[in-house]
Amino acid sequence: MDISSYIKTHIDLNYNEKQLPFTAKEKRFAKNSILTDYEVIEENIFFLKSGIVQVEINYNDVERILDFFFPYTFFCSYTSLLKSVPSDVKIVALNNCVVDVIKHTDLLAAYEHSLMANKLGRIESEKLYLRKVKHEKDLMTKSAEVRYGELLTEQPEIIKQIPINRISQYLGVRPESLSRIRKSIS
Amino acid sequence: MDISSYIKTHIDLNYNEKQLPFTAKEKRFAKNSILTDYEVIEENIFFLKSGIVQVEINYNDVERILDFFFPYTFFCSYTSLLKSVPSDVKIVALNNCVVDVIKHTDLLAAYEHSLMANKLGRIESEKLYLRKVKHEKDLMTKSAEVRYGELLTEQPEIIKQIPINRISQYLGVRPESLSRIRKSIS
Repeated sequence: MDISSYIKTHIDLNYNEKQLPFTAKEKRFAKNSILTDYEVIEENIFFLKSGIVQVEINYNDVERILDFFFPYTFFCSYTSLLKSVPSDVKIVALNNCVVDVIKHTDLLAAYEHSLMANKLGRIESEKLYLRKVKHEKDLMTKSAEVRYGELLTEQPEIIKQIPINRISQYLGVRPESLSRIRKSIS
Repeated sequence: MDISSYIKTHIDLNYNEKQLPFTAKEKRFAKNSILTDYEVIEENIFFLKSGIVQVEINYNDVERILDFFFPYTFFCSYTSLLKSVPSDVKIVALNNCVVDVIKHTDLLAAYEHSLMANKLGRIESEKLYLRKVKHEKDLMTKSAEVRYGELLTEQPEIIKQIPINRISQYLGVRPESLSRIRKSIS
């Protein structure tokens, strides 16, 4: 699925423009390569066509994983992009990835006149907002055990496709604790 | 400032439509009245013209304050609105408030055809996203003392206008702890 078909399916059923209101350029990233590094200002929006990426953050010298993105989602260092500040997250290809890349400057130009670009920007911002709310709530209310149980039922693709040490970084527990949690659940 | 002048200033400098793409109806709420209650599905978007509102949440029977909104901002129980699920927050007028109310159904209809409505929705979603990111980061990295110090310098209007017991609910500390923090800073 490319951006045009994503838009037709998820943003606007009536979308039938032949041309996107911005250019999107396919790019490949090998496993473990960095799409956006700490301290750079984000200049791109990525649409993931295949592979998995992870968003890392460093809190008090502890590396945590904030999020994983799976195919057919948009991602980038969004705070850096919106505020033009150096990124405090690092985005890494967890395996070989194919993405479509949109330049931020092209998107901003499209926002000036294109209804569809604004619809897309609005709906994707809403989705990212909802992800953040869920994460905030989970952090404030749920133990790592409960959160692992929810991953099992709600996002089994994370459990199946992502190495266990990275899942422990995502849940914010040491690998030993996660082993204990997995034993107690199974 | 009403919604039209807000749009002209913050969303689109060239905005000169005489009519908004949706209706906005002025409404007054007396101090302590509830704009959106727990468990209802949010049906409105509010634009705050005067007064302050607070967003409350109940975690494990502890009432916390998630956010304060000041004049010339849009607010609502946004997750409830976007997902059509019962609200898990309560929005309360901290003093007498005047708001413009937009019905969600009207906004959805405007989203179908209006560039401006989508621009507004996109930019406001981006802002709410940035607020959430800041809050998440603050919760994960900063002590109540640091967060209080930042309120003093970055959002003095909160310190000046909001009762101290509510600030302690916002910072997630007991009132005694906040007194101690204030003494140590002054």
